[in-house]
Amino acid sequence: VLSEFELIARYFTPPTTHTVLAGGDDAALVHVAPGMELVVSTDMLVGGRHFFDDADPYGVGHKSLAVNLSDLAAMGATPRWATLSIALPAADQTWIASFADGFLRLARLFDVDLIGGDTTRGPLNICVQAMGEVPAGAALRRDGAQAGDEVWVSGTLGEAALAVAHRHGQLELPAQAVAHARERLDFPQPRVALGLGLRGVAHAMIDISDGLVADLGHICERSGVAAVVQWEAVPKPAVASRRGEDPLLRQCVLAGGDDYELCFTAPASRGRQVLDAASAAGVSVTRVGRIEAGASVTVVDAAGHALQLERGGYDHFR
Amino acid sequence: VLSEFELIARYFTPPTTHTVLAGGDDAALVHVAPGMELVVSTDMLVGGRHFFDDADPYGVGHKSLAVNLSDLAAMGATPRWATLSIALPAADQTWIASFADGFLRLARLFDVDLIGGDTTRGPLNICVQAMGEVPAGAALRRDGAQAGDEVWVSGTLGEAALAVAHRHGQLELPAQAVAHARERLDFPQPRVALGLGLRGVAHAMIDISDGLVADLGHICERSGVAAVVQWEAVPKPAVASRRGEDPLLRQCVLAGGDDYELCFTAPASRGRQVLDAASAAGVSVTRVGRIEAGASVTVVDAAGHALQLERGGYDHFR
Repeated sequence: VLSEFELIARYFTPPTTHTVLAGGDDAALVHVAPGMELVVSTDMLVGGRHFFDDADPYGVGHKSLAVNLSDLAAMGATPRWATLSIALPAADQTWIASFADGFLRLARLFDVDLIGGDTTRGPLNICVQAMGEVPAGAALRRDGAQAGDEVWVSGTLGEAALAVAHRHGQLELPAQAVAHARERLDFPQPRVALGLGLRGVAHAMIDISDGLVADLGHICERSGVAAVVQWEAVPKPAVASRRGEDPLLRQCVLAGGDDYELCFTAPASRGRQVLDAASAAGVSVTRVGRIEAGASVTVVDAAGHALQLERGGYDHFR
Repeated sequence: VLSEFELIARYFTPPTTHTVLAGGDDAALVHVAPGMELVVSTDMLVGGRHFFDDADPYGVGHKSLAVNLSDLAAMGATPRWATLSIALPAADQTWIASFADGFLRLARLFDVDLIGGDTTRGPLNICVQAMGEVPAGAALRRDGAQAGDEVWVSGTLGEAALAVAHRHGQLELPAQAVAHARERLDFPQPRVALGLGLRGVAHAMIDISDGLVADLGHICERSGVAAVVQWEAVPKPAVASRRGEDPLLRQCVLAGGDDYELCFTAPASRGRQVLDAASAAGVSVTRVGRIEAGASVTVVDAAGHALQLERGGYDHFR
């Protein structure tokens, strides 16, 4: 059995490219560039709750970093560093090697240095903190939306939730749609390039982790505005065209969560710049609604009638 | 039942004094002062492993931050910010309120802003990341020890391990000694002021979390040196004088861990400055040995004979 120190040395000590001191000491040392603010995000993933107990560890490694990089993307930040703390029921080397592989491959892709962490024994729990840089004052926050802004989302929404619903036997999907949905659930792609491209363009931004209605709701609450979303305009999974107005599909798209797409608001005059930023980032973006005076989020159908949702978003204590 | 958002709002959103944006967004924003390096430490505490399942939540809150501040202290850093991620079996408000109280009281004491975190449901797990600042190049690392240096430790060693041994029924202690040992186990005091005072004085430093022999061993390994420790000189719990050469007592002092005292090396010519720094910080310090050429740590008795230890330090996977 490998010791804690051997585990760390073997799997979690990759080379770093922009770190003063990583690993092997009481703390890591990094240098934040002059004029930049440090952007800090953290997420905790629990086995059997945030991922299936039998989930591929490579995917768990990917996702545990991806959800944090998605948070940095939603601030318009450049990812730079991460720490990784992990509690494991046993020192299962096969699991750990595959987990580390998924985590570190994504880290390399975004030039993120793994600078430290902790390993211990316990029920499976992964806690990642990601740190990035943004020019002082340039971060895209939730509180900048203004009446008259257009509401945009990147990519398509609902696939990850469809994968979970399928897994729970709540709906049938064609095999190809299942594979695609599982890919979206297990391998979310943080929209870092889009986030960077929207600095100076968008007014407010958030990543969609709890579902469009809940997360757009956070923008509205922090900005003191309302949003009206056109259901017809929301970018849906390909399978949606065959399922029509299935309430479960609608629930997945609007409130499923785990999308890790960006939702942002921008003045109508910036529409061209939004599309250019998306094109440069290689990500699709879609106008889905508008910011108005007031509070709360309303989703309306083609006839302008408000849709009812079972719940607004995911809450770990409800 | 409070929701995740209500929990965070009620218990984990204290005022901040030196943070651009804390909480309520995808990530926090902070500004690292020019000329300073960011110092980053993280520790994960698992219920039933790092603290007893029935531990007072106020103490758990204290300790989960204290162990991270101890890491910053061991770098000679000034603590500045922390994030807190926590998995809870249920939204037990009494537990959470007391936990938050212990955590935030210590945070205020060291002027640490709680800038973000995550709450979720799961087996009890607390993951804290602490961040601090140190002038570029001034951090006290593990790799700076030199042959001829004296080895010092702060405070006394072994009390926390005695408390655990008592709890496990491995030894009897007078009631007052139990209370004192429990205080040391549950409320470690990070030696921040001492760490700051030793910048430019000590050559290498570490905090004692795994036991003196193991942690001094890390300094030796990283510095490419050996250390010889005089057992007679090691500052022991008051109860030790009555227990003589009890092997369990010796094990607790040298390899028990959870001390959160500082172990550091400094040239003999700096002895006066070490004592002055300790005096200014209000912490006792004791010379316990010397750095030599070679590798590994040896503990010798008054006759110069090497002591045998059962194990060198705590390892979560052995």
